[in-house]
Parts: sequence; structure tokens; C-alpha cells
Amino acid sequence: MLTKENIADRLMQLQQSICVALEQEDGKGKFIEEKWEREGGGGGRSRVLQHGNVIEKGGVNFSAVHGELPANIQQALKITESKFFATGVSIVIHPSSPLMPIIHMNVRYFELANGEYWFGGGIDLTPHYVNVDDAKWFHTQLKNTCDAFDGSYYPKFKEWADDYFFIPHRNETRGIGGIFFDRLKADVESKTSEGKQGLFDFLIAVGETFAPIYLHFMKLKRSLDYSEEEKKWQMLRRGRYVEFNLIYDKGTRFGLDTNGRTESILMSLPENAGWFYNYNPTAGSQEAQTLELLKKGIDWA
Amino acid sequence: MLTKENIADRLMQLQQSICVALEQEDGKGKFIEEKWEREGGGGGRSRVLQHGNVIEKGGVNFSAVHGELPANIQQALKITESKFFATGVSIVIHPSSPLMPIIHMNVRYFELANGEYWFGGGIDLTPHYVNVDDAKWFHTQLKNTCDAFDGSYYPKFKEWADDYFFIPHRNETRGIGGIFFDRLKADVESKTSEGKQGLFDFLIAVGETFAPIYLHFMKLKRSLDYSEEEKKWQMLRRGRYVEFNLIYDKGTRFGLDTNGRTESILMSLPENAGWFYNYNPTAGSQEAQTLELLKKGIDWA
Repeated sequence: MLTKENIADRLMQLQQSICVALEQEDGKGKFIEEKWEREGGGGGRSRVLQHGNVIEKGGVNFSAVHGELPANIQQALKITESKFFATGVSIVIHPSSPLMPIIHMNVRYFELANGEYWFGGGIDLTPHYVNVDDAKWFHTQLKNTCDAFDGSYYPKFKEWADDYFFIPHRNETRGIGGIFFDRLKADVESKTSEGKQGLFDFLIAVGETFAPIYLHFMKLKRSLDYSEEEKKWQMLRRGRYVEFNLIYDKGTRFGLDTNGRTESILMSLPENAGWFYNYNPTAGSQEAQTLELLKKGIDWA
Repeated sequence: MLTKENIADRLMQLQQSICVALEQEDGKGKFIEEKWEREGGGGGRSRVLQHGNVIEKGGVNFSAVHGELPANIQQALKITESKFFATGVSIVIHPSSPLMPIIHMNVRYFELANGEYWFGGGIDLTPHYVNVDDAKWFHTQLKNTCDAFDGSYYPKFKEWADDYFFIPHRNETRGIGGIFFDRLKADVESKTSEGKQGLFDFLIAVGETFAPIYLHFMKLKRSLDYSEEEKKWQMLRRGRYVEFNLIYDKGTRFGLDTNGRTESILMSLPENAGWFYNYNPTAGSQEAQTLELLKKGIDWA
């Protein structure tokens, strides 16, 4: 029987193994850990690395919280039960180099006192400059992970990521997407511990896909030189990232609305970001090409 | 009879006179103007100044829009009428120097097709470092403007600003507040054009208070030297400004939800901002003293 404690323990291990892998490849940065408790119940283990060789600011957070859901969250989730348990690992890495992508991963488990539960999560990539080969490679890794479990997962979760990581007021996607899923649960008929175990195995497989993917990009891009102009564009792209996270991201809102630890929730924000009024890249530039590729529905894999 | 066209015209004049005053005192920066049209009806005249001597990024926007309100905005406003007209001037100035305050002003008029109308607006100040004398001076100016119309305005609108410009997840105010008011309309009994005219005169008086206030700070602070450490703190305070505007500010949300011009709405964001994980100023430092003063309910005037 897979208990919420089993799930939380396994996710803590995942946090640990990812931190080790990132530190090793970075070669300089070390994660600083803060353990925190939530007033309403539970707590977490936040780990943030700043000013590494490759990673400028990266957070790999674990939390396991429980208590009462505020009414507005119950409404948003369309549930009437208020006693909840939630555990997950959340990652955002902002690299120093504008030629390296920002990455985000989240795997989470949610359970209500009435026995209802679901899994959610995903991985998505936000290159400051979209490179078509990198995008294909990235989506192929995600597709491979998904296909090992269910052939319907990748197309479905890829489309979901396109829709979720979208900035309406800019009419652009946050990055090149990836996979996103929520409310994943075993069918009612087959609601056995095996069905739940299978979904959890998938969740962990997604989590285990993160480190090899990002280490690939770290190795590939860490020695590339970049210009002041590229750094400025990175600031602008980081500004868009901030806009998405503060205005639209449901995880951020959930965290702030349930009185989570603000510094842990907002570790997703970059060390700096910029807003340049009415900035329009020159036609044909790398920047303009990137904008062309920040669209929904591109079949990368 | 005071028509919506009269009001919009007068607000455009206000935009113009403020831009002239700011350019003159800055001595280098020039406002760049964009006229834009809104698909649903109306448009605006955006003016942004970047990289002046004193002002790093400042926007002074006029708009007059009309059309159909989206259902979520009708709900938020608790109205059933959907045809609206809205006009206003919005200002945010981010100075280069961390020793100079960020300032925000907004004056607006809102009218529904059923004849209902109201005025709203305010001025608030966000010093990167709170200086007690400056704060007293600032609030006294606002009190003087209010008292010339109604002795109840300043205490009421000052408290409203404290409540509105508050960042719950940081448990701090955005700055030292100022005045904020909304849904200001003539009493139903005295709903004559004179009552409306009186309120409009107050609105314009608030608008006319802006330039003398900010010019005072420009003159006072423009020649002061500052350190790298102070510049870093400015980045952090700007980060908080971004958090407030993107998460909580109703004007920003109204603009984005009604498909306003994104670059005009988000001109309120600074050229750059920073997020430093778990940054805690040293006890007794200028930064720590500022945090002590970012609280509701301080009687400055």
C-alpha cells in the first residue's frame, strides 16, 4: 500500500539526488538548505544555489504540507472537502549564460481527507534563444519517458504544457513547453493500489528525467561565449518569466494563498530581470527568430 | 454640464503639463509618444521617458477607452451594466538613484451606459530608503490638497492607501503610502452637475499636486552620491514593486483583462529588478530601518 508518507519520502530522495547531480556538474555552487515549518501544518526543505559556475540561481524545493484549504482554493479545485495533504518537488534553474535555457520541473501528489488523490507535474524549458535542435532533443527525452508508460501521455501532456505555459497578454508561450499534467488518478473501476503505484512510478520517472536533461545542456553550453546584447535579451526574457509566474502560475498562487514560505515559493524568480519599453527585435535577428518559435502547437518531437 | 469628453480633454491636458514639467527638471530625457487604439473601442496616448539624467524609466499615460466589460470585471465591480467608458492618467516614475523615491499617480473617471459614474485615483510614494522628513513632507502635501476640499478626505484616503498598497506575502507596505480613493461620486440626493463638478475639481487638484511633489524630490536628491550596496537594495525594492503590480494591482489586472495595450500597462515596471534569495538586512542598517517603516497606520502628516 502506497501511503502519503512513502510518497513524501521518495520525493525527498529525488530532491537529494538532483541536488547532488547539479552541484557536481556546476563544479562551484553549493545548495544552501533551509528547513521550514508551515503554521497551518507541515513544512519543507528548501535548497537554493546561487552564483555557481553555470547556475546563477537555482532552487530545488521539497515540501509536504497539510491542513485546511482556504475557500477560494476549494472553489478553484471544485472540491468541497477542505482537509488536504500535498507534497512535491519544485525546481527552477536560472543559468548565468543567456545561451543556456531556464528549466522548470514539478512533481506533486495531492490527497484529501475523503480519500481522493491525484498526481500532477511536468517539465518545461525556457531557452532565452530557441535552438531547434535542442528543442527537438528536449521533447524527444520527454516523449521517451512518457511512452514507456502510456502512448497517449506525451501528445496529451505536451498540448497541456503549450496551453498552460502561455502568456496571454504577450501572445507568446513562456518557452518551448514540455509536458504538464494534473489530476492524474487511477480510473475509478481499477482504483487499486497497483493503479496508484503505476501513476507514482510515472511521476518518479518524470522526476528522474530532469537531471540528465539539464546536465546535457550544462555540458553543451557552459563554455560558450556570449555578448552584452545577448545578456540584455536574457534580462527581457527573464522579465517575461516573472510576468508568467506572478500573474498566471497556479502553483505560485496556491503557495501564496495557503501561506506557504514566500522565499521558497518565489525562488523561481531570477536574480535579475528587465523591462525595456516597447522593445522590438530587428527583423531576421536571433531574437526575432526566437519570438517566432514561442508559439503553441509546434511538433518538436 | 460636465461630459465625459470634457473630462477626457482635461486629463489629456494634465498629461501634457506633467510631461513638460518632468522633462524640464530632468534636463536630458525626452518622452517618446505612442498613440494606440483599442480593438474594443477607444485608445490612448502613452508617453515614456527612458535614460534621463534623473529618471531611468518613467511613464505618463493617458487613455480613454469604451466598450463591453468582460463578465469577471462586472462581477469584481458588482455591476450588471456592461457598457463602459473609462478615462485616466497613470504615472509611474523609476529614478536611477536609489536615494530618490519611486512615485505613482493615477486619476480616473469611470462611466456606465446606465448613467452611473465615479472617480478614483491617488498618489503614493515608494522610497527605496524611507526618510522620515521626506515622508512627513510628502503626506503634508497630500493632506493640504485634500483639506482644501473636504476635511474627511485625507484620513480616509490615507488609510485606504495603506490597505491598498500592501503586499500580504511580504507583510509589508509597498512604500509609505499616500492617498487612494475609488468609487467617489456625488450623493444621490445632491446628484447635480455641481456635485460632480466638485469631485472632478478635486480629482484635478490631486493630479496637479503630482508635479510639484516629484520635482521637489528630483531637486533635493539628484546630486546625491550612492553606493553599489544601495543600488543592490534598490533592485530588491524594485522586485517588491514588480510583485505588487503583477499580483495585486487592480489597475494592472483591469488593463490586461480588458485587452489594453500591454506595453502601456506594464510601463509601471522598472528597467530592472532583482530577487536575492532570503536576503535579510543587518540589524540597525538603513535597509533594516526602512523595513521597520513599511507598515500600515503610521501617521506621517
